[in-house]
Amino acid sequence: MELELLPVTDPGRTFVAQCEEHAPDFASRAAEHDRDATFPIENIEAMQKSGAFAACVPEEHGGLGLTSLHDLTVGVNRLARGDGSTAIASNMHLGATWVATRAWREATAYGDAAVAELTGGMLSGVGAGALVACVLITEYGTTPGYPLTELTRAEGGWLLNGRKGFGTLSPVADLYLVQARRRLDDDDQIVFASVLAGSDGVEMKDNWDALGMRASGSQDLVFRDCLVPDEAVFVSGQWGGNGTSHLIGMISGVTGLVGAFLGIAEEVRRIVVESVMTRRKAPSDRLLSERSAIQRAVAEMEIDLAASRAMLSRTTAHLDEYFASHDPEQVTINDLHRLNADVQCTKTFVNRKAVDVVDRALTASGGAGYLTASPLSRLYRDVRAGPFMQTYSPNEAYEYIGKVTLGLDPTLDL
Amino acid sequence: MELELLPVTDPGRTFVAQCEEHAPDFASRAAEHDRDATFPIENIEAMQKSGAFAACVPEEHGGLGLTSLHDLTVGVNRLARGDGSTAIASNMHLGATWVATRAWREATAYGDAAVAELTGGMLSGVGAGALVACVLITEYGTTPGYPLTELTRAEGGWLLNGRKGFGTLSPVADLYLVQARRRLDDDDQIVFASVLAGSDGVEMKDNWDALGMRASGSQDLVFRDCLVPDEAVFVSGQWGGNGTSHLIGMISGVTGLVGAFLGIAEEVRRIVVESVMTRRKAPSDRLLSERSAIQRAVAEMEIDLAASRAMLSRTTAHLDEYFASHDPEQVTINDLHRLNADVQCTKTFVNRKAVDVVDRALTASGGAGYLTASPLSRLYRDVRAGPFMQTYSPNEAYEYIGKVTLGLDPTLDL
Amino acid sequence: MELELLPVTDPGRTFVAQCEEHAPDFASRAAEHDRDATFPIENIEAMQKSGAFAACVPEEHGGLGLTSLHDLTVGVNRLARGDGSTAIASNMHLGATWVATRAWREATAYGDAAVAELTGGMLSGVGAGALVACVLITEYGTTPGYPLTELTRAEGGWLLNGRKGFGTLSPVADLYLVQARRRLDDDDQIVFASVLAGSDGVEMKDNWDALGMRASGSQDLVFRDCLVPDEAVFVSGQWGGNGTSHLIGMISGVTGLVGAFLGIAEEVRRIVVESVMTRRKAPSDRLLSERSAIQRAVAEMEIDLAASRAMLSRTTAHLDEYFASHDPEQVTINDLHRLNADVQCTKTFVNRKAVDVVDRALTASGGAGYLTASPLSRLYRDVRAGPFMQTYSPNEAYEYIGKVTLGLDPTLDL
Amino acid sequence: MELELLPVTDPGRTFVAQCEEHAPDFASRAAEHDRDATFPIENIEAMQKSGAFAACVPEEHGGLGLTSLHDLTVGVNRLARGDGSTAIASNMHLGATWVATRAWREATAYGDAAVAELTGGMLSGVGAGALVACVLITEYGTTPGYPLTELTRAEGGWLLNGRKGFGTLSPVADLYLVQARRRLDDDDQIVFASVLAGSDGVEMKDNWDALGMRASGSQDLVFRDCLVPDEAVFVSGQWGGNGTSHLIGMISGVTGLVGAFLGIAEEVRRIVVESVMTRRKAPSDRLLSERSAIQRAVAEMEIDLAASRAMLSRTTAHLDEYFASHDPEQVTINDLHRLNADVQCTKTFVNRKAVDVVDRALTASGGAGYLTASPLSRLYRDVRAGPFMQTYSPNEAYEYIGKVTLGLDPTLDL
Repeated sequence: MELELLPVTDPGRTFVAQCEEHAPDFASRAAEHDRDATFPIENIEAMQKSGAFAACVPEEHGGLGLTSLHDLTVGVNRLARGDGSTAIASNMHLGATWVATRAWREATAYGDAAVAELTGGMLSGVGAGALVACVLITEYGTTPGYPLTELTRAEGGWLLNGRKGFGTLSPVADLYLVQARRRLDDDDQIVFASVLAGSDGVEMKDNWDALGMRASGSQDLVFRDCLVPDEAVFVSGQWGGNGTSHLIGMISGVTGLVGAFLGIAEEVRRIVVESVMTRRKAPSDRLLSERSAIQRAVAEMEIDLAASRAMLSRTTAHLDEYFASHDPEQVTINDLHRLNADVQCTKTFVNRKAVDVVDRALTASGGAGYLTASPLSRLYRDVRAGPFMQTYSPNEAYEYIGKVTLGLDPTLDL
Repeated sequence: MELELLPVTDPGRTFVAQCEEHAPDFASRAAEHDRDATFPIENIEAMQKSGAFAACVPEEHGGLGLTSLHDLTVGVNRLARGDGSTAIASNMHLGATWVATRAWREATAYGDAAVAELTGGMLSGVGAGALVACVLITEYGTTPGYPLTELTRAEGGWLLNGRKGFGTLSPVADLYLVQARRRLDDDDQIVFASVLAGSDGVEMKDNWDALGMRASGSQDLVFRDCLVPDEAVFVSGQWGGNGTSHLIGMISGVTGLVGAFLGIAEEVRRIVVESVMTRRKAPSDRLLSERSAIQRAVAEMEIDLAASRAMLSRTTAHLDEYFASHDPEQVTINDLHRLNADVQCTKTFVNRKAVDVVDRALTASGGAGYLTASPLSRLYRDVRAGPFMQTYSPNEAYEYIGKVTLGLDPTLDL
Repeated sequence: MELELLPVTDPGRTFVAQCEEHAPDFASRAAEHDRDATFPIENIEAMQKSGAFAACVPEEHGGLGLTSLHDLTVGVNRLARGDGSTAIASNMHLGATWVATRAWREATAYGDAAVAELTGGMLSGVGAGALVACVLITEYGTTPGYPLTELTRAEGGWLLNGRKGFGTLSPVADLYLVQARRRLDDDDQIVFASVLAGSDGVEMKDNWDALGMRASGSQDLVFRDCLVPDEAVFVSGQWGGNGTSHLIGMISGVTGLVGAFLGIAEEVRRIVVESVMTRRKAPSDRLLSERSAIQRAVAEMEIDLAASRAMLSRTTAHLDEYFASHDPEQVTINDLHRLNADVQCTKTFVNRKAVDVVDRALTASGGAGYLTASPLSRLYRDVRAGPFMQTYSPNEAYEYIGKVTLGLDPTLDL
Repeated sequence: MELELLPVTDPGRTFVAQCEEHAPDFASRAAEHDRDATFPIENIEAMQKSGAFAACVPEEHGGLGLTSLHDLTVGVNRLARGDGSTAIASNMHLGATWVATRAWREATAYGDAAVAELTGGMLSGVGAGALVACVLITEYGTTPGYPLTELTRAEGGWLLNGRKGFGTLSPVADLYLVQARRRLDDDDQIVFASVLAGSDGVEMKDNWDALGMRASGSQDLVFRDCLVPDEAVFVSGQWGGNGTSHLIGMISGVTGLVGAFLGIAEEVRRIVVESVMTRRKAPSDRLLSERSAIQRAVAEMEIDLAASRAMLSRTTAHLDEYFASHDPEQVTINDLHRLNADVQCTKTFVNRKAVDVVDRALTASGGAGYLTASPLSRLYRDVRAGPFMQTYSPNEAYEYIGKVTLGLDPTLDL
């Protein structure tokens, strides 16, 4: 698979090598965790131990200093070839540390001691292999950018109330970054509240039971009058989702997820190609690879994978280039919407093509892939999660991309 | 759903009404049987009791006398709205009795006492609600039309050896009709061997564990030196699959299956339409049905369902018309290939569109359908079985349709 | 092509036979009229002479008494195999007379002498082969249902002002039925003004020059203070397009157009199949039909044609059945929206599949079809007109179908 | 259009700037040349004058020294935004000079004086703006790689006989490089015969009349006993198309063509976006860009363009990297097949997506784009040429990609 995505920075090369080493180990347990819908704690521990979980942590805090979203995406892509659930769970934490690192550098450069301390503390914890972070955004009954979970004023800080769904990685998280609404007199904000696992008023529901990605621990979390001190609240933007911080958070969390679904598709392609190059069928007992319909199916997979890799590579390279060449105060909301529209093009395309690739693989398998004994049957279920992942669903993405392209206010008509 | 398919004969109306009454009852148990991969014996018993399982049995033998493949298809379509697994399992038996009735009528008309007695006996059993029949065709490692299971000469008849896969309905079948190869000195035949369940040399594997259609009991059956008397062997055609009997059997078994996958898609459409007409989401709290992307998704489903219903209706009406206007000796292999090419067009199209409809429904569900708690997550797994069902896979169907249309020998290049 | 659509009524059989006789004659001139963008007057004259142009005229007025929209559609389908431009031009007139006949029967039955006289006069003229009618609906800058062409009060009637585009058949029309807006004190109506060709204030622009359907004479017509007497104005519904008359007019005009685009696709399929069954290419010099990619391309065409025929047949049969079983006062706006949603499903699907079939045929032609010398290059241009034809564009159709299905007000959000 | 492809080398930047300056000038004449099917000689002259036509000529011979296929592709992409016909005609010459330069450098480095002299002479001519080269490959009745045009032994060299089709650029070419078969006693070769325009035995047919690309001069050329001296014959590989020279020629000619079709799609997108941002329609008189269906159509175009750009960029960058890092003797046939499979993925995908983008643009135009007065109607015809362009048709490409991926002999089963 020589046309696969390759890392372009030194920390990226280290990280991707770590991920490639983890993948076969994770693969060996994937079927079992899928069947039982259990969270593979051992995978997370292995990544804490290898250092992969600290990839985005600055070297000053004990990490690899990986800043390239391209390379981060490539690493998550490799993890997904072993286990998609672990890949998306890891991306949750890696994306959070990427954002924290950016915030820490900015706070340090601009002298914002409070933020520098908080983010620095978190990064040191991750760097030491002692902290797992998880971002809680999605809620049933609303749309990203419009959290209903709310912070209200209380003695000594704020009270957090609400229910978060799809809390991937939360079974092992030490720290939750909870997206919430905060209504002030003159402002209606999205904020992130930093909450330690096990705090009073936090309930993990252990209710993740889904079609696929069953080992991702994407359970619900309920917050009831959970006290959050002032300094643990970060403003992300306006309720409704505009704001550079909000957009950077969205963008940096998405590309790794897309890499994961590409990784699932690549793994499926590998399985099918290997299979048809060795299986024979009566009456001719020719290799299946010699049948023209199989050749065509494989070609269609190759085309979709080639397009998917190219888009993901180009989009993440653009992001890296933009962030490398723009100081925080040079980053504009319009630039970010343009970049995010490109990210959404890539997300929409790649996640759909990943579904298509697996579907074609099933067809090429001739029915064998439909059996539970085949990894294809699991990957068919896993890959369908892609279009649901943040930021936007396909329909929302179409509207967003269209509006940005047409120079309109990109707020969705929800 | 006023544009649904409707029966056109009196026995058809009775049968479809029975199926519509069974469907909600079957639906109430579908999730549980799916989870546990158990076979819903109670559903089969209910259909034996209501008379639906004897639909294709002549009135002389205690059945409804249903001969219309159109109406048979409509009934199976209704069953599938309740439980797809039960629908395809029922179609197995119903198709077998449709073929047996045709053979019985022909044998009676042409004075073939042996066949008349054997088929008459089977039909009486079914008519009395005391016999379930199951056809075993598929094998791993070969293609329909080229069975590797084989009959070899033995004292007092033939010995049957081989392994059949995807033996839908077999857990409760009393009688297996086993497709096998019989090499004679001057002939290489496909035959059906009629074998009673529980005979010596028959092993049920209880190994059905698949992505979907988990309650269909599609387990393997192994035959080891199973003795089959001469009179229990029917010649179906040449090994390789040509022959009018073989083609009539293929054709009559397919349309009900297609009806089943249409039924799954219709049920999914019903669930989603009902859902978006009642659910609301922040920030606007409008009904989801008022969102333009939802309207478009629903329109796309309507178009696919309209096309699917029209094709299935037209194809089965053509079949009914052909069989009603052609005596057995007027039926030609060329006519059957033309009809079968049309059947394959319909199968390929409808089974794919059913997959597409469920995929769109998942998208429209916004992630809710991905949870195990939603019936959509089960129906997404069930519907994907469609393209694998007999006769041809999509790739085989393309080749077959193309060759028939272009006036070539339709034998597949396997 | 034994699976083609066949007429089901006696007048339909006569009409379709006439059309089948005209088609090869029309085909012989199609390339020339296409090149020069000239209107094939001789085709219209031939149809007036054969009686085909009076198909929908009651026998009392000298016509065939064709009332089945199914059979009308089949006839137009046959014309289009010869010349698509003539087919859509003919449908314009045929649809107008179908509506006039319905209005005449209703006026006669309900004792509305004025309408009976006007429509009766028109029908007699058509029945005598002496009158061609053309309906003018489309305008640049607005949407069907919202005409900007307007009738304003004047001495002795109304003044008509406005510009109509896509005036198919207008070069030879004797009578224009012009959709216009009429604002009354308490009402804002869509009306049809009946205007004789050559009247004062009517200007034909002779400006039809398009990608395809170049021989359809779909030029602009400009009306400047054109006087229309009171009795020549028929109310069709509210401005915006609701109302049973308006909907019946829309529905009855569409199905023939869809039949025309199906006819183009069928002709293309015929050309390509014939071609690959006779052409050979180096290095093997096998017939092209023996290549697996060609077989697949042909199979994909067959599937799309089978689906298209089935939908068109089922939809028009439903319409016939509805109109046959409902007296005018039993026809409800809700029923019509349901029927029209089905018509729009069929229009959207068939017109798109016709485009796809021609595209695949071009691919299968290996480049030969791209040359002007090949009829495929013309049919590729012609067939693309389909999605633009009334009533709705694909995007409008999606919205309409979705809203009707979801029980919402079907007015488009324009 | 900030996400467009950008050149990455200095000569590339110069070349692309030249092309961007030519494009609007070419655009001003495109409609007229299309209507009359005339060859835009003035465009070629302008490019000779600006130096763009000598882009791939080494600086030693008066050119820009452009070696990057990526940047060559980007330049052709820009030309196509002005006039697709001129872009593909230019690519013919540019590709030929790219190959000649490579041959010249190799011959110089390895001391092959004859080849160095011949290619050097040609390059000097191009560098001086005095020579236009055209490669003649396609023939009716055979497949690329299997030319039927043949060289036979004659006094003083070889006699060339055959007919070439799709001779793009030939109306102004000074030199034809004619792909032909040469059967030797022990070898059956593909060769290129270098023939001066106007030589004895060469007939230009002036017969180019096609659906689109009407200004590309893709006429037939007939060779009858045309004498070619020994030193004007270059061996390209075995008849049937294997061989590194043959593959390098194929690969280097394709990417610019793909760039051209991407350019057409980009231009169409620009036209439509501009249009919907300024047009309004009754009844609302909102901008069309505010309609959700338009936003979605635009988003779908953006996604397809983003994928197309990314693939083309990645593929050409890979080619540049491979050729930069491999000396001629390090280039293997297996490597080239892998690279070519990737090129074919990109060609198949981008050319199809370009067709889709223009189709969607037509839909979004609401019928206006169907009129000859709109550039969309021309671009709809032009863009459909893409899938026919060399090397492989879509069906051939599927087979080739499949076989390469599956490790089979990539020779097509023709």
